[in-house]
Amino acid sequence: MSTYTPPTGLQLRSLVKPTGELEISLLSIETPSPAPDEVVVRIEATPINPSDIGLLFGAADLSTAQVSGTKSRPVVTARIPEPAMKGMAARVGQSLPVGNEGAGVVIAAGASAAAQALLGKTVAILGGAMYAQYRCIRADQCLVLPEGTTPAEGASCFVNPLTALGMVETMRREGHKALVHTAAASNLGQMLNRICLKDQIALVNIVRKPAQEAILKNLGARYVCDASSPTFMADLTQALVETGATIAFDATGGGKLAGQILTCMEAALNRSAKEYSRYGSTTHKQVYLYGGLDTGPTEFNRNFGMAWGIGGWLLFPFLQKIGPAAAQALRERVAAELKTTFASSYSKEISLAEALQPEVIAMYGQRATGTKYLINPNKGM
Amino acid sequence: MSTYTPPTGLQLRSLVKPTGELEISLLSIETPSPAPDEVVVRIEATPINPSDIGLLFGAADLSTAQVSGTKSRPVVTARIPEPAMKGMAARVGQSLPVGNEGAGVVIAAGASAAAQALLGKTVAILGGAMYAQYRCIRADQCLVLPEGTTPAEGASCFVNPLTALGMVETMRREGHKALVHTAAASNLGQMLNRICLKDQIALVNIVRKPAQEAILKNLGARYVCDASSPTFMADLTQALVETGATIAFDATGGGKLAGQILTCMEAALNRSAKEYSRYGSTTHKQVYLYGGLDTGPTEFNRNFGMAWGIGGWLLFPFLQKIGPAAAQALRERVAAELKTTFASSYSKEISLAEALQPEVIAMYGQRATGTKYLINPNKGM
Repeated sequence: MSTYTPPTGLQLRSLVKPTGELEISLLSIETPSPAPDEVVVRIEATPINPSDIGLLFGAADLSTAQVSGTKSRPVVTARIPEPAMKGMAARVGQSLPVGNEGAGVVIAAGASAAAQALLGKTVAILGGAMYAQYRCIRADQCLVLPEGTTPAEGASCFVNPLTALGMVETMRREGHKALVHTAAASNLGQMLNRICLKDQIALVNIVRKPAQEAILKNLGARYVCDASSPTFMADLTQALVETGATIAFDATGGGKLAGQILTCMEAALNRSAKEYSRYGSTTHKQVYLYGGLDTGPTEFNRNFGMAWGIGGWLLFPFLQKIGPAAAQALRERVAAELKTTFASSYSKEISLAEALQPEVIAMYGQRATGTKYLINPNKGM
Repeated sequence: MSTYTPPTGLQLRSLVKPTGELEISLLSIETPSPAPDEVVVRIEATPINPSDIGLLFGAADLSTAQVSGTKSRPVVTARIPEPAMKGMAARVGQSLPVGNEGAGVVIAAGASAAAQALLGKTVAILGGAMYAQYRCIRADQCLVLPEGTTPAEGASCFVNPLTALGMVETMRREGHKALVHTAAASNLGQMLNRICLKDQIALVNIVRKPAQEAILKNLGARYVCDASSPTFMADLTQALVETGATIAFDATGGGKLAGQILTCMEAALNRSAKEYSRYGSTTHKQVYLYGGLDTGPTEFNRNFGMAWGIGGWLLFPFLQKIGPAAAQALRERVAAELKTTFASSYSKEISLAEALQPEVIAMYGQRATGTKYLINPNKGM
């Protein structure tokens, strides 16, 4: 055992109080000594993903945000509207760390050979509590970044890349040959477009504005359907006839889009049907809802036969389902293509304290395309 | 090869004309000579199931039904409302036989030993075109009824019994331990209740009226939740806590019920949750829509985490999926318990010509519980 003294570092915490108040603060936390199979990473880059924002702010009304504390240790408070507290019940009173993924340098390692081999290496890691100066984590959860890669370049190795690859892998494992993606001009959508172009997989991109259609066309996308167009249903059906796509990943969640996709898939399948089937096409059509940009109810007319499914899709259970070897293969592809297929860009790098400034929250809290922020928890430390 | 001359017999046909007219008639059809592995069955009993009514009448407005032709060869016509013709497009111009299942006596057999062994036997068969005097069918599709069983007793061997058993089998194969059923006072629901009582499976019955609750309670059902009660959501959640049911079969299809079931399943799972999970319970919750009693849109709020699915469920693809041996085991159980667990009762036995009388159609066309009709295509022949 080494005589290593673990550093104390700041860690961001989000707390929902029983009174309906959200409190975000920076706690001083003693980093655990690494167990034999663990390492300590000094986090130098961790992105603010849409999936982080949900945990960070809960259902709080950000227009009520106020800041107290000191400049280096600010405390943000905001009100959670009464009706939304029901959905927060399970987290009330728990001070939760935030931050799904990040990258940094291994500054301490447990006694195992696998852990020792990582000392001094720049690694990407996934597993929560990344909005912190230090993170103790199992060595086998670290992805060693290729020589010459900075923590900022490796900070988004997991959530978006593995989600996009997970969609393609789900398509293959469930026996489909092409896929549909909504909110397709997003960072994730552009990444999926790059994967599909590289792997020669037909991808039907659904966007909601003509400008987004132009973005994707400029990036080489072949099939782009604009849901705001009066010919949307006909356009989508035609794209589905040409691609044969029978699986979709929908980021919007609410509204009628998922059902419209199934309706068009059925229409596309029936165009080539040889004889009448009273129960519709026997080909299974699937839509996975992986996001909730539209928080309203999901609604559909069942006019697409009986061979269909709608369900939730989430990265972590997917990775568990495919098992460690298959998951590792996906991670290695990400590392190999980190500066091309899986490159991310950020509009700004901020410190932990800056992440708690109301004017900064107002920017990254919008979740708008093109305003992605990167936290460097050791910036200015 | 035998010198057998195949009989000519009446067969009911349903035809949607391009003009928007439905025509139901009786055609005189020459029965094919059986191939070596086939037999010819003289059909003596075939039920009118809800699933038959859909094919029989399509989207026609039965209040416009008129009869022409002769007493023994009536022809029924009815108007299909203009907007509904879109959904009929795939069957326009095709004269379709009707009748999913039936029972009768084998009057001719092909040369194979399996076919010859069935000569003179009373058998139950499944496969369409049963509203006919004769049906040529593969020998391995015949279920030999136990000695002393009449065709009327064996006429409903498949659709309801295999659907109910299929629900239980789906529950087991997908890793659930208890199940939920809606429209639970139906014939099918009562049969499922008998299966679950016998097999000691916890079943949560959802009904829509207090009177239906009483029917099921009298039949020994332990969990019955009335969706019309103001305490429905709390009652259902409590039943789900007690049973641990995480799969449901919904006959209503439209409306909010499927989503309500998922919401209550999630609430039941979270009652025993140890720590906060931002994505909800990790236990998969599934609702299969197997009917469409409510033809309106399906609508749900996504307040049940990410581990969920909604999808169509249909008997025939299910039987294909489990394979011939497993399907045969289900059929044999039905035959063995035909007069107990799987007994059906009928309000009336009618001939093919009677099935085309408007006043008779008005009765069985209601699909109401307790007005199930049985056709004997050879009645009075």
